[in-house]
Amino acid sequence: MIRIGLDAMGSDNAPFGDVEGAVLAAREFDYEIILVGNESLIRKELEKYKPIPSNISIHHASEVIGMHEQPVLSVRRKKDSSIVILGNLAKEKKVDAIVSAGNTGAVVCAATLKCRLLQGIERAGIGIVMPTLKDPMVMIDGGANIDAKPYHLLQYGIMASAYSEHILGIKSPRAGLLNVGEEESKGTGFLKEAYTLLESSGLNFIGNVEGRDFFIGDCDVIVCDGLVGNVALKVSESVVYAFGEMLKKELKSSFLASIGAMLSKNAFRSMKKKMDYTEYGGAPLLGVDGVCIIGHGSSTPKAIKNAIRVAGEEVIKNVNQHIVEAIAVRREE
Amino acid sequence: MIRIGLDAMGSDNAPFGDVEGAVLAAREFDYEIILVGNESLIRKELEKYKPIPSNISIHHASEVIGMHEQPVLSVRRKKDSSIVILGNLAKEKKVDAIVSAGNTGAVVCAATLKCRLLQGIERAGIGIVMPTLKDPMVMIDGGANIDAKPYHLLQYGIMASAYSEHILGIKSPRAGLLNVGEEESKGTGFLKEAYTLLESSGLNFIGNVEGRDFFIGDCDVIVCDGLVGNVALKVSESVVYAFGEMLKKELKSSFLASIGAMLSKNAFRSMKKKMDYTEYGGAPLLGVDGVCIIGHGSSTPKAIKNAIRVAGEEVIKNVNQHIVEAIAVRREE
Repeated sequence: MIRIGLDAMGSDNAPFGDVEGAVLAAREFDYEIILVGNESLIRKELEKYKPIPSNISIHHASEVIGMHEQPVLSVRRKKDSSIVILGNLAKEKKVDAIVSAGNTGAVVCAATLKCRLLQGIERAGIGIVMPTLKDPMVMIDGGANIDAKPYHLLQYGIMASAYSEHILGIKSPRAGLLNVGEEESKGTGFLKEAYTLLESSGLNFIGNVEGRDFFIGDCDVIVCDGLVGNVALKVSESVVYAFGEMLKKELKSSFLASIGAMLSKNAFRSMKKKMDYTEYGGAPLLGVDGVCIIGHGSSTPKAIKNAIRVAGEEVIKNVNQHIVEAIAVRREE
Repeated sequence: MIRIGLDAMGSDNAPFGDVEGAVLAAREFDYEIILVGNESLIRKELEKYKPIPSNISIHHASEVIGMHEQPVLSVRRKKDSSIVILGNLAKEKKVDAIVSAGNTGAVVCAATLKCRLLQGIERAGIGIVMPTLKDPMVMIDGGANIDAKPYHLLQYGIMASAYSEHILGIKSPRAGLLNVGEEESKGTGFLKEAYTLLESSGLNFIGNVEGRDFFIGDCDVIVCDGLVGNVALKVSESVVYAFGEMLKKELKSSFLASIGAMLSKNAFRSMKKKMDYTEYGGAPLLGVDGVCIIGHGSSTPKAIKNAIRVAGEEVIKNVNQHIVEAIAVRREE
């Protein structure tokens, strides 16, 4: 049975949401789920969900790394934190995958430090699966590496294409380089170098793409450095939030509009679901020699459940093996 | 009377939309509007709007710079293009402001080359006025300068703060530096340097902000380099577009939902208006010794009209004088 380690102290609502998500996942999937965190807190939480699924167990961790702690320092100092222990469990192959909705930088640091990188990979990158008007798309890097080199972007393209193909089921995914314009001559020296590398990579490289290509669905993989990717991700979330708030306010502003809103409630729900990142589970940290899924700090129990689902899929479909093979082919050429 | 030069060959629908926008503006505002472009085409277009307002005139330009032409080369070669002629008119003080919805790079290049930069300014930046849940916000740079130095970001903060105060009427605007996290230690060396400069600038600097702060309205000026700013702007547009498309589809999917949509139509319109960039007119190119407003390629006549309105306001409120004074104060310190 696939064993998944979950940070019970991860999300903003830890351990409530994380434990509930674990229970939902344990009931739905045939995985063994190991909750890592303060044992008595977790046990108390689990009591709420009787009968407690037999495929849930607890691994005690006495410390917690907070959302605003400095990643490298906190991983070094808090050796008994849930995040560091997850890294150890993965390293010792006591779990097949780890999931955390905690401090993203600390998770990246612990996973990279403990599991090391896949053969041939120079930097790990966070793949963000985003909804579009057509199929879901992977943007990489969502913020693991803000001082990227052009060669890292090439490897990101290879890793995210493997993920798109084997997890999202997209044949020959179209990969684009995020830039300020479509023409090959656009962008900084850094981007021009990355363009040249991607062009001769053997990937289905469609050239430069722009921010406006994000949610359209004509591109399956968007490659960028972690700074740009992080801004793009958070700006998208901000627009969706603001749009929702404005809509709510407007629809309450008159009697007719509020009746209209009632009637169209199901349509809104269905659309919100499509735009909802929690549906896609967490973000895979690609490039580490192990499976690591990073959840949003504001993860709901459903998001935690889906992150566990995605972690299991990554193990079953052996995405890392596909990445290693794709990288090896590129190196032989 | 304030004289505004408008690129009649600028937008994707030129000269139709541009000329109609000029007519709308000429009827509403007490400005003299000079349409620059192919005289016979413009004249033919103007015939549709009889009586033609007397405050509209034509300045012939035999060439057009296309949307996908290389900016520097095209400005150098096409000396009789509408964009280059607009630059000349501004330089010779034959107009007080210029407006174009054409090739952004070419407009930046022509304006900078012909008008030169304001005293003490090292680089021009495009200020993008964005709606938020509270007051509108200015993000700078939207893409004029993708190889920015930390010092340019300091000057962007000063220029956009002056714009926010004098055009948007925001007292002591809160300026933030766009980064991957709020802590001072976050980001690349480039961003850390920019942070230090902004911190001791005398601006109302609130520290690092993230992509998620964009549409919330707790920040009045967001400073970033042109690459990140361009991506942020276009990603935002993409989300709004995709959200709208999904909503349309969902609301048509059932009978009840479509009745609901009919009833809430006005609320939707009002919200769309709030999210609509065309309401804010174009984007000011800040830092040039002249007033230059850049419109979106897909500008509607209303957007053109609003860009002309904003150009006039920038002249009346003498934003450039405020910028020069703010820069001088900083230099004396």
